[in-house]
Amino acid sequence: VTAPFLVADWGTTSRRAWLLGGDGEVLASVEDGRGMLSIPPGGWEPAFAELKGALGGVEPRLSLIAGMAGADRGWRDAGYLPCPAAIDDLARGLCWVEPDTVAIVPGLAVTGDGRADVMRGEETQILGAIAAGLAPPDCVACHPGTHTKWISVHGAKVARFRTVMTGELFALLKAHSILAGQLREEVTPGPDFDAGLDRGLATGEAIPDLFAIRADALSGAGRIGNGAAYASGLLIGADIRAGLTKEPDGEVYVIGRPDLAALYVRAIEGSGRRAVAVDGGTAVVAGLRRIAEIVE
Amino acid sequence: VTAPFLVADWGTTSRRAWLLGGDGEVLASVEDGRGMLSIPPGGWEPAFAELKGALGGVEPRLSLIAGMAGADRGWRDAGYLPCPAAIDDLARGLCWVEPDTVAIVPGLAVTGDGRADVMRGEETQILGAIAAGLAPPDCVACHPGTHTKWISVHGAKVARFRTVMTGELFALLKAHSILAGQLREEVTPGPDFDAGLDRGLATGEAIPDLFAIRADALSGAGRIGNGAAYASGLLIGADIRAGLTKEPDGEVYVIGRPDLAALYVRAIEGSGRRAVAVDGGTAVVAGLRRIAEIVE
Repeated sequence: VTAPFLVADWGTTSRRAWLLGGDGEVLASVEDGRGMLSIPPGGWEPAFAELKGALGGVEPRLSLIAGMAGADRGWRDAGYLPCPAAIDDLARGLCWVEPDTVAIVPGLAVTGDGRADVMRGEETQILGAIAAGLAPPDCVACHPGTHTKWISVHGAKVARFRTVMTGELFALLKAHSILAGQLREEVTPGPDFDAGLDRGLATGEAIPDLFAIRADALSGAGRIGNGAAYASGLLIGADIRAGLTKEPDGEVYVIGRPDLAALYVRAIEGSGRRAVAVDGGTAVVAGLRRIAEIVE
Repeated sequence: VTAPFLVADWGTTSRRAWLLGGDGEVLASVEDGRGMLSIPPGGWEPAFAELKGALGGVEPRLSLIAGMAGADRGWRDAGYLPCPAAIDDLARGLCWVEPDTVAIVPGLAVTGDGRADVMRGEETQILGAIAAGLAPPDCVACHPGTHTKWISVHGAKVARFRTVMTGELFALLKAHSILAGQLREEVTPGPDFDAGLDRGLATGEAIPDLFAIRADALSGAGRIGNGAAYASGLLIGADIRAGLTKEPDGEVYVIGRPDLAALYVRAIEGSGRRAVAVDGGTAVVAGLRRIAEIVE
């Protein structure tokens, strides 16, 4: 691939970028809080210039960006491609911000099956992981987070997927709900997380068990020590149950931040499935390198 | 019962009260927004005096109050009685604010079954409905609302119950979530509510389908017209599925505000169960009258 080559995963609340040399070696990398929500209208060009500065001030020959930079309120609306979609489709669908030098990867949409869904960023990670041999061309992938994605991949194409607002719901409950007083502690692994997880995995329904966190305190039952850990376990258990119910057996590839991926791997294995963690940064770099090879 | 007799359902955000004559006839009634949350520390006596004024300024011989007036941050902590509990237990457990003249009904708690739960106010309504012949002594009752209660009654005793935060979750999503832009319309009966309801009843899992409301708009799929109605239907469908799964067959008695009770009756009948609406005000008056008869 042409060097220097800038690759970036520009998300809703944060961004990560790497400057790569001709053999794919990392010359510089940066991660900061300048996600989409922090960038005012007209602020994307300066934010990109600042990003290049943070990577050493070298002018890249090519820059490829995945994630919310391509949203309707991002730098440029890169649209959504229909599924099934392979990494070649992402390459052909690039949205060029500067001809031949700066492009944003399109998102993916599914609209069949009685239910619409969209993603932006995760497609580059899972198809990149497959291109790099970190996941097989037929698998189930999970991207845990604010909006967890469960992805079915067939023949190295994203066939269908589902978004579950697990992380956002936890944040809403912690910030604004009647449970807020019981959700103040840090979420830590342990018996409360495991008890919530077992419950969520068993029932697949987190909502009917949430109020028990408050009632446990009010009634003096005292079964739940760390309410935040219990709630998180409950939501993650229900997330996994819903995400995997319709999927065939086999390993689940969990792609994301190492700490969160490790939590999901442990939880998925608790549900009786094997799971493998894949680093999200490695996956997005691999995906954008493969896209660059295709377009060059 | 001694007259004049004041009965009140003093809730979190509103209160209702009635002044009754010697034959139970309503001499005056009032409903306003002076719920628990609006009353500062030390403000309960003045708020009660103001309530008596709004009912005509007559000094009641007896006043019985159900609801959040008995919470730990209410007028006086009336505690929780264990289940199973009959209306006689509520009468014996009254918390007297003024000897022989003003009392608050205790709440109920369940702590067995691996899961704690509490209620405050609904116990007076369901046991009052049974005392008045509006519901049978063995039944399933549903109190829909911010915190929906599903109650199993056996032999005119509350045997067990479960709280589901259906209304609160809808309010959180509408006010604070990424779906807020799609939840601006009024919830109205119609095809979007029914589509959400069918989905929630079928899966019992509302959370994995919430994001589809946003994705439907972003992807241009355009299946969902009124996102708020769809989300409400989804949450209510999952609420009903979770509430009734473990309950024996038979009619469900839906107790509450007539508009919300009618919505739940229609939804429960859509799930294949018969349902009967009971007016919440009638039920609480009946319950407090029965308690007064017991203590006199």
